[in-house]
Amino acid sequence: RRTGAAEAVFAAGKTPDQVVRALTELRNAHPELPALATRCEPACLEAVKAAFDGVTVAETLAVVGDFPEPSLGTVGVVCAGTSDLPVAHEALYTSRALAMETHLIADVGVAGIHRLLAQEERLRSFSVLVVVAGMEGALPSVVAGLTDRPLIAVPTSVGYGASFGGLSALLTMLNSCAPGITTVNIDNGFGAAQAALRMLRLTDQTKD
Amino acid sequence: RRTGAAEAVFAAGKTPDQVVRALTELRNAHPELPALATRCEPACLEAVKAAFDGVTVAETLAVVGDFPEPSLGTVGVVCAGTSDLPVAHEALYTSRALAMETHLIADVGVAGIHRLLAQEERLRSFSVLVVVAGMEGALPSVVAGLTDRPLIAVPTSVGYGASFGGLSALLTMLNSCAPGITTVNIDNGFGAAQAALRMLRLTDQTKD
Amino acid sequence: RRTGAAEAVFAAGKTPDQVVRALTELRNAHPELPALATRCEPACLEAVKAAFDGVTVAETLAVVGDFPEPSLGTVGVVCAGTSDLPVAHEALYTSRALAMETHLIADVGVAGIHRLLAQEERLRSFSVLVVVAGMEGALPSVVAGLTDRPLIAVPTSVGYGASFGGLSALLTMLNSCAPGITTVNIDNGFGAAQAALRMLRLTDQTKD
Amino acid sequence: RRTGAAEAVFAAGKTPDQVVRALTELRNAHPELPALATRCEPACLEAVKAAFDGVTVAETLAVVGDFPEPSLGTVGVVCAGTSDLPVAHEALYTSRALAMETHLIADVGVAGIHRLLAQEERLRSFSVLVVVAGMEGALPSVVAGLTDRPLIAVPTSVGYGASFGGLSALLTMLNSCAPGITTVNIDNGFGAAQAALRMLRLTDQTKD
Amino acid sequence: RRTGAAEAVFAAGKTPDQVVRALTELRNAHPELPALATRCEPACLEAVKAAFDGVTVAETLAVVGDFPEPSLGTVGVVCAGTSDLPVAHEALYTSRALAMETHLIADVGVAGIHRLLAQEERLRSFSVLVVVAGMEGALPSVVAGLTDRPLIAVPTSVGYGASFGGLSALLTMLNSCAPGITTVNIDNGFGAAQAALRMLRLTDQTKD
Amino acid sequence: RRTGAAEAVFAAGKTPDQVVRALTELRNAHPELPALATRCEPACLEAVKAAFDGVTVAETLAVVGDFPEPSLGTVGVVCAGTSDLPVAHEALYTSRALAMETHLIADVGVAGIHRLLAQEERLRSFSVLVVVAGMEGALPSVVAGLTDRPLIAVPTSVGYGASFGGLSALLTMLNSCAPGITTVNIDNGFGAAQAALRMLRLTDQTKD
Amino acid sequence: RRTGAAEAVFAAGKTPDQVVRALTELRNAHPELPALATRCEPACLEAVKAAFDGVTVAETLAVVGDFPEPSLGTVGVVCAGTSDLPVAHEALYTSRALAMETHLIADVGVAGIHRLLAQEERLRSFSVLVVVAGMEGALPSVVAGLTDRPLIAVPTSVGYGASFGGLSALLTMLNSCAPGITTVNIDNGFGAAQAALRMLRLTDQTKD
Amino acid sequence: RRTGAAEAVFAAGKTPDQVVRALTELRNAHPELPALATRCEPACLEAVKAAFDGVTVAETLAVVGDFPEPSLGTVGVVCAGTSDLPVAHEALYTSRALAMETHLIADVGVAGIHRLLAQEERLRSFSVLVVVAGMEGALPSVVAGLTDRPLIAVPTSVGYGASFGGLSALLTMLNSCAPGITTVNIDNGFGAAQAALRMLRLTDQTKD
Ligand SMILES: Nc1ncnc2c1ncn2[C@@H]1O[C@H](COP(=O)(O)O)[C@@H](O)[C@H]1O
Ligand SMILES: Nc1ncnc2c1ncn2[C@@H]1O[C@H](COP(=O)(O)O)[C@@H](O)[C@H]1O
Ligand SMILES: Nc1ncnc2c1ncn2[C@@H]1O[C@H](COP(=O)(O)O)[C@@H](O)[C@H]1O
Ligand SMILES: Nc1ncnc2c1ncn2[C@@H]1O[C@H](COP(=O)(O)O)[C@@H](O)[C@H]1O
Ligand SMILES: [Mg+2]
Ligand SMILES: [Mg+2]
Ligand SMILES: [Mg+2]
Ligand SMILES: [Mg+2]
Ligand SMILES: [Mg+2]
Ligand SMILES: [Mg+2]
Ligand SMILES: [Mg+2]
Ligand SMILES: [Mg+2]
Repeated sequence: RRTGAAEAVFAAGKTPDQVVRALTELRNAHPELPALATRCEPACLEAVKAAFDGVTVAETLAVVGDFPEPSLGTVGVVCAGTSDLPVAHEALYTSRALAMETHLIADVGVAGIHRLLAQEERLRSFSVLVVVAGMEGALPSVVAGLTDRPLIAVPTSVGYGASFGGLSALLTMLNSCAPGITTVNIDNGFGAAQAALRMLRLTDQTKD
Repeated sequence: RRTGAAEAVFAAGKTPDQVVRALTELRNAHPELPALATRCEPACLEAVKAAFDGVTVAETLAVVGDFPEPSLGTVGVVCAGTSDLPVAHEALYTSRALAMETHLIADVGVAGIHRLLAQEERLRSFSVLVVVAGMEGALPSVVAGLTDRPLIAVPTSVGYGASFGGLSALLTMLNSCAPGITTVNIDNGFGAAQAALRMLRLTDQTKD
Repeated sequence: RRTGAAEAVFAAGKTPDQVVRALTELRNAHPELPALATRCEPACLEAVKAAFDGVTVAETLAVVGDFPEPSLGTVGVVCAGTSDLPVAHEALYTSRALAMETHLIADVGVAGIHRLLAQEERLRSFSVLVVVAGMEGALPSVVAGLTDRPLIAVPTSVGYGASFGGLSALLTMLNSCAPGITTVNIDNGFGAAQAALRMLRLTDQTKD
Repeated sequence: RRTGAAEAVFAAGKTPDQVVRALTELRNAHPELPALATRCEPACLEAVKAAFDGVTVAETLAVVGDFPEPSLGTVGVVCAGTSDLPVAHEALYTSRALAMETHLIADVGVAGIHRLLAQEERLRSFSVLVVVAGMEGALPSVVAGLTDRPLIAVPTSVGYGASFGGLSALLTMLNSCAPGITTVNIDNGFGAAQAALRMLRLTDQTKD
Repeated sequence: RRTGAAEAVFAAGKTPDQVVRALTELRNAHPELPALATRCEPACLEAVKAAFDGVTVAETLAVVGDFPEPSLGTVGVVCAGTSDLPVAHEALYTSRALAMETHLIADVGVAGIHRLLAQEERLRSFSVLVVVAGMEGALPSVVAGLTDRPLIAVPTSVGYGASFGGLSALLTMLNSCAPGITTVNIDNGFGAAQAALRMLRLTDQTKD
Repeated sequence: RRTGAAEAVFAAGKTPDQVVRALTELRNAHPELPALATRCEPACLEAVKAAFDGVTVAETLAVVGDFPEPSLGTVGVVCAGTSDLPVAHEALYTSRALAMETHLIADVGVAGIHRLLAQEERLRSFSVLVVVAGMEGALPSVVAGLTDRPLIAVPTSVGYGASFGGLSALLTMLNSCAPGITTVNIDNGFGAAQAALRMLRLTDQTKD
Repeated sequence: RRTGAAEAVFAAGKTPDQVVRALTELRNAHPELPALATRCEPACLEAVKAAFDGVTVAETLAVVGDFPEPSLGTVGVVCAGTSDLPVAHEALYTSRALAMETHLIADVGVAGIHRLLAQEERLRSFSVLVVVAGMEGALPSVVAGLTDRPLIAVPTSVGYGASFGGLSALLTMLNSCAPGITTVNIDNGFGAAQAALRMLRLTDQTKD
Repeated sequence: RRTGAAEAVFAAGKTPDQVVRALTELRNAHPELPALATRCEPACLEAVKAAFDGVTVAETLAVVGDFPEPSLGTVGVVCAGTSDLPVAHEALYTSRALAMETHLIADVGVAGIHRLLAQEERLRSFSVLVVVAGMEGALPSVVAGLTDRPLIAVPTSVGYGASFGGLSALLTMLNSCAPGITTVNIDNGFGAAQAALRMLRLTDQTKD
C-alpha cells in the first residue's frame, strides 16, 4: 500500500454492496488496520453494520475494525457548531484510525471571540490543528494567530445563498492573512487527517 | 437634492475636465456643502486642486469645500492595514463631509486577535461601525461579535490570486455568522458612509 | 447572550429532533423571549407544534412563545409578490420577535411603478425599510430613491435560468446606484431583521 | 450585402490602417451608405478623420459619409447618466446611419423615479426603445412597465467591484420581471440599433 | 391590466391550489382572454384540468379558455429537436394566446445545415422569428443570416456538463456575430412571445 | 525529444533574451528542424529576427529555420475573419513546421452560411480540419456537419462583454451537437496543430 | 444519415416510451447497425430490454442489436477507478458499436504512477487513446507524455466540493502541458468514441 | 512578533518608498533576522538595493540581511519549468530566510514522467515538499504518490485561456486524488514557506 496506513472507501455514488465489497478487500489485505467508508447513505451504513463486527458509526462515516493505539502526536479538530460536525467527525475518526490521538473542540466561532479565547491554552497544546468551518469560514485565520503549529483548514459546504456550496469558506481560507495556513477541498475531513498524518510522521523516530 | 447631504462625483472613467465641471455644478447648487470626487487619477487630483480652493486630498479622494460641523452621531471606521487604507479613507472623509464625527482604527486584523481586543472598549463607543477588509474579509464578523451597534461591512479588492478582485471578501461578509451585519459593494467606502448617514439620521431630533 | 434579543435555530439540514432540542434550550435560557426556527421542513414544523404551546407558523418559519410588546421603532417589509413572501415573512416575524413594530407591503414591483408610487407616503412612514426582491432585484433601488431612511436589501433565490439561485438579485443590490443601500445574504430575512434591530437600538433611550 | 443597410467595422484590436482599409472597402461597395467604425482608439479616430471627408465622431465611434434621410419609424435611446453615454451614442448614431429617426433621453435613473416619470409621455412616443444601463441595470424594467413598445435592453460595463464588467447589469435585464424585454451583449449599442432596424422594417410598406 | 393581453401564472414553486386560484382571478378579470399557467408539475396540470373547462395542455403548460382569433402578424417558432420542445411550445402557445398566428418548425439543427436550408423560404415567410436552442445554442446565428426579420433567441437549459444549465447557449446567443439578434432568459418561451407581441403591435393599424 | 517534431517557445512573459536563448537551444539540439516562438511581443520578434537567419513572422509568431517538406496528410485551417487570424496563423505555421501540408480558408462565418457552403467541396478535401472561432464560436458545429474528417475546434479570446475572454466560444465548442468534435484551450493554435500531427501520424506508413 | 455509423439516443430527460420509440426508428432505418441509448434511468433500461432482443447493458447505457465486426483500428479506453467506469463504458461500447476494436484499462491513476507505467507498453499499442478522469483530471497529461498517438481526454463529473461538477477536470485537460491533447464535454464518452471514429477513418483504405 | 521568524512586506500596490520604510521597520525591530519584500516592481527593487546593504534579489523578491544558519529540517521546492520559477523562488528564499535548508528541483513536469521519476530518490530525501505548478497543476498529485512527506501545493497564475489566472491549477490541487496534499493561494510561495516552517517546528527539540 502506498501510504502505510488505514484506507477509506468513498461511498457517495456507490451501492451498499459495492461499499461492503470494497471494505472487505481492504480488511483482507490489512487485517491489522481499520477500514473506513466515508459519505455513506443510511442504507449503506446498515449494510456495513450487517456485514462486519465492530463497526463505529459517526453520521455518514463507518469505521470497520479496532482503532490502533495512538502512536504519533496529537491532533486538535476545531469547529464552530453542529452543522459542521459531520465534516469534523470525518477528520476526527480518520485521524484516530491513522493512529493519531485526536480531540474535538466544537462550538467556538469567530462571532463569539471570547469563548474561543477561553480555549487558547488548549488550542496550543496540540501538535497539529484541523480547523473546520462553513459559511464565511473565518475560524482558521483567527486560530492561526493564536498558535504556530501546522494548521489545516477545511471549508465545509454548510451555508446557503452566497455560500455557493462551500466556495465562500474555501476562498476565505485560501486568502487568509494568517501566514502558513494550508487548505484542503470542501468537506474533505478525510484529506485533512491524511495531511496531519504526513506532518506527524516527521516526528516519528521509528520511521524510515 | 434627493438625500439632503454632500454629494460625490465618481471620477473613474471621467476626464479631469469632466470631474471639475461636475464638482463645479455641485458647489454652485449647494455652496454650503462640501463636494467629493472619488477614485481620482493623479492628473484628476491636480486639476481639482488647481480649480478650487480648500481641497482636501486622501489617496484618490478629493473633498472640495469645508467639512461641516459634526451634528449627528459618531462613526468608527475600522481596517486591518495599509493596503485597505484608500477605501477606509473614502468612508472616513465621506462620513465627515456628511456631518458625522468619524474616527479611524487601522491595523487591527483577525490574525492578531489580541491587538483587536485591546480596542474592544473603543469599538463599542461609536454609534455606527464601518469595517473595511480585503483578502479573506473576516474582520466584520469578529467586530460584530463585540458590539450590538449597526455594522456596515466593506469588502476591498485588495488581494491576489483567489481573492478574485474582492469577491472572496465580499462572500465572506455576506455569509457572516454574526447576526445583523450588512454589506456594500467592493471598495464602496462612499456607499458605506451614505448608509451610516441613513442610520444616524434616525437619532436626529431635528429631522423631518 | 450576545445580542440581548430573541434567537433562532437554522433548521435546514437538522432533524426535527435536533430543532426541538435547540428550541428547548433557547426557551429555557430565556423564557421571557420568543425562540425562532427558520427554514423548517413540514415534518419539522409538525414536531415543533407538537412540542410547544403557542407556536406561530408562517411558511417555513416557526416562532415559539409570545411576541414581545413592540418597544423600538417601526419596520416596513416590502416585496413584489407571492413568490418572495416566505423571505418577507421571515423578516417580518423575526422583526416582531425582536420587539419591533413591523408591517408588510406586498405586491409592489418595479414593472408597475405607479402601484408602487401609490405607497410612497406609507413607505416614508417607517423608521427602517427591509426590501425583499428576487429575479432582477431592482425594487430596493427604486424605494431608496423615495426615502432617506435606512434600507436593507434582501435578495431572494426566486427565479430561474440566469437568476442563478439569487445571484442576479444579489448583484443588482450591491451595484445599486441609490446611495446608502446595504445588503444581506440571499434569502436572509432573519439577518435583515437583526440588522434593523441594530439600527433601531440607536434610538432606544433606555439602552446601554 | 446581407442586411441591406449601413455596416460597421469593429475597431477594437485592429490597427488604424486596418480600420481605414476596411472602411474604404465598405464605402466603395456602397457609396450611398455611411460606414461606421466602433470602439476606436484615439489614434484610430485620427487616421479615419485624415483618410475621409465628412466624418462624424462621438466618443469612440466614427461615421463616414452622410446620414441617410430617416425613412423608418422613431427610436428612443434612454440612459441614466454620463458614464453610459458612449454606449448610448453607439446606439444613437448607428440607428441614424440605418435611416431611423433617433433621439436621446439621458439622465433618467431608477433611483430618481420622479424625474423618469416626467418623461413618461415622451417615452411612449417612440416606435422602439433602446434602454442603456450599467451597474445594477434596472432602468429597462421600469421603462418597460410604462409602454408596450418593443424594448431592447443594453447592459454596459460601467461599474466597479461586483458589477464584474457588466455581468450584473446583464443578469438584471435577462431576469427582468417586465414582460417582453429582450437583451443584447454588454456595451453592444451597435447590435441594439440593428435589432431596432429589424423591428421597424416590419412597418416599412416599401419592403420586400 | 398592464399590457392589454393574455396573462400567465408562473406555476413553479406554487401549490396546485395556488395556481388554480390565480388562474380563476385572471379568468374573472378578463373572461374574454385565455389564461396560461407555465412550468406546471403533473399534479398541478391535473388540478387545472379538473377546475376548468376547455384546458389545452402542452408538456408543462396549461391554457385555460379559447385562443383568440389571430389578428396580428405571424410568428415562426424554430427549434432543433425534441429536447427543446417544451420551451418551444411555451413560446408557441403563449403567442397564440396573445392573438398571433404562430407555427412551429422543429428538427432543424446547425449540424445538419442542408435540412435547415431546405426551410429557408419558409423561415423568411414569418413576420417575427423565435429561435429556441440548448447545448451550444448556435441556431439563432445561422437563421439570422437567412432573414432580416426580428429574431428573438431563446436559450434552453437542455444539455449536460459544460452547458451549465443553459449558460452556454445563453452566452452563444449574446455573442452572436449575426447583427440584430436579441435574447431572453434561459427557458423563457413566455417572454419571447411577449416580445414578439410588442414587435407585431408596431404593424397594428388599430392600435393607440 | 518527446514527440519527435518541431518544438516551440511560449514567449508570453519571457524577455526577448530568454526567448532567443531558448530558440538557440532548440536549434542546436535539432538543426534539421524549425523552432517556433509563439505569443511574441514586437520587441521579442525584433530580437529573434536579429539573432537568426531565415525567420518567418506571422503576427506574434516567429519560425526559425526552413519548413520541412510536407510528408504527412493535409490540414485545413478554417476561420471566420480577420480578428481570428493570429490564432489561425499559429495553427497554420505550426502545422507546416510539423511537416503537414496546410491551407487556410478565412472569411467563412455562420451568419453568412451560403458563403460557407460554397466551400463545402474544398472543406471535404482535407485530411484533418482545424476550425478557429471567437465570439459565439459556432463555426465548428456547422463545418462538422459537412464532413466526417477529424475536426479540432479552437476557441479564441476575440470578443467583448459576455464573451468573457473566450469562455463563450469554448463552451459552445464543448457543447456542440455535432458528433465527434474535440476542443483545445482558448487561442491554442499551437496545440491544435500538435493534435493534427498525432492524427496524421496514424496514416504514416514509415512510422514506428 | 450524416455520419454513416451507429447512432444514439440521449435518454436523460426523456420518458422510457420516448426512448423506445426513438430506438425503434433508428433500428428501422438501419437494421444492420446497433442503436444506443445513453444516460438511461433504471426504468428506461427495463423498457428497452422489454422492447428489443439482444440488448447489452452497461451501467446507464443500452446497446440494441449486434456489435459489428471491428474493421477499423484499435481504441484504448483508460481510467483511474470504479467511479469513472460509467463514462469509460459509454466510450467503450460506443466505440465497439462504431466498429472499432476497443479495450479498457481501468485502475491506473496519477497518484500511483508506477502502476500506470507498468502499462506503458500496452498504452502504446493502441491507435487512439480515450483517457477518462474525474476530480483533478490529470491522467491524460501523463498518458500523453508516454505516447504520440491521438489522445482524447474525457473529464467526468465524479468528485465533490471544488470539482464543481466536472469543471476542475475539464480545466485541467484544456490546460494540459502535454502537446496535442484534445478534449470533449464533461461525461461525454459517446462524443469521444465519435471523435475516435473520425480519426480512425483516416486509415480506412476502403473509405471515400 | 507573532510567529518568531523572518517577516515580509507585500510590495504589490505599494510605492518604493513605502516598501523601503516597511523594510526599515522590520530590520530595526529584528536586526538579527532578514526581512523580505515580495512582488516588487523593478523600481522598487532598485530602491531597496539603494537603501540597504546585502540585498539578495530573485526575480521580484528582495531579501535584506543575511540568511540565518539552517537549523530546522530540509525543504524541497519542485516545479516544472521557467515560467513557474518566480513563485518557486519566492518559496525557496522565504524558506531559507526562515532558517530551513532548501533546495530547488526545476524542470520536472507530468508530461515527461520519466524525467520526474529519475528524481524519485531525491524527492524522498526532503522533510517537506513544496510543489509549484501552473496551467493544469498536476505535478503535486504525481509527486505525492512518490513520498509520504508533507506536501504543500502552490498553484501559479502561469497559463492562458482557460487557466483563468491560476484557477485551473488551484482546482486541480484541491481535487487531487493523492491523499494528504494541502494547498495555498495562487502564486503564494511565501505562504508555502510559512506553512513548511510550521511543520518543521514540530521536529525542533529546542522549541516551546
Ligand atoms: N471523504 C473523503 N474525501 C476525500 N477522499 C476520500 C474520502 N474517502 C475516501 N477518499 C479517497 O478515496 C479513495 C477511495 O476511492 P474509491 O476507490 O472510489 O472508493 C481512498 O483511498 C481515499 O484516498
Ligand atoms: N414561463 C414564464 N417565464 C417567465 N415569466 C413568466 C412565465 N410565466 C409567467 N410569467 C410571468 O410571471 C407573471 C406571473 O407571476 P406570478 O404572479 O408569480 O404567477 C406573469 O404575469 C408573467 O409576467
Ligand atoms: N502558443 C502556444 N500555446 C500552447 N502551448 C504552447 C504554445 N507555444 C509553445 N507551447 C508549449 O510550451 C512549451 C514551451 O514552453 P516554455 O518552456 O515555457 O517555453 C512548448 O514545448 C510547447 O509544448
Ligand atoms: N507574497 C506574499 N504572499 C502572501 N502574503 C504575503 C506575501 N508577502 C507578504 N505577505 C504578508 O503580508 C504581510 C505584510 O503586509 P503589508 O503590511 O500590507 O505589507 C506580511 O506580514 C505577510 O504576512
Ligand atoms: Mg463559520
Ligand atoms: Mg483582511
Ligand atoms: Mg423583483
Ligand atoms: Mg443604472
Ligand atoms: Mg442546439
Ligand atoms: Mg465566430
Ligand atoms: Mg482522476
Ligand atoms: Mg504544470
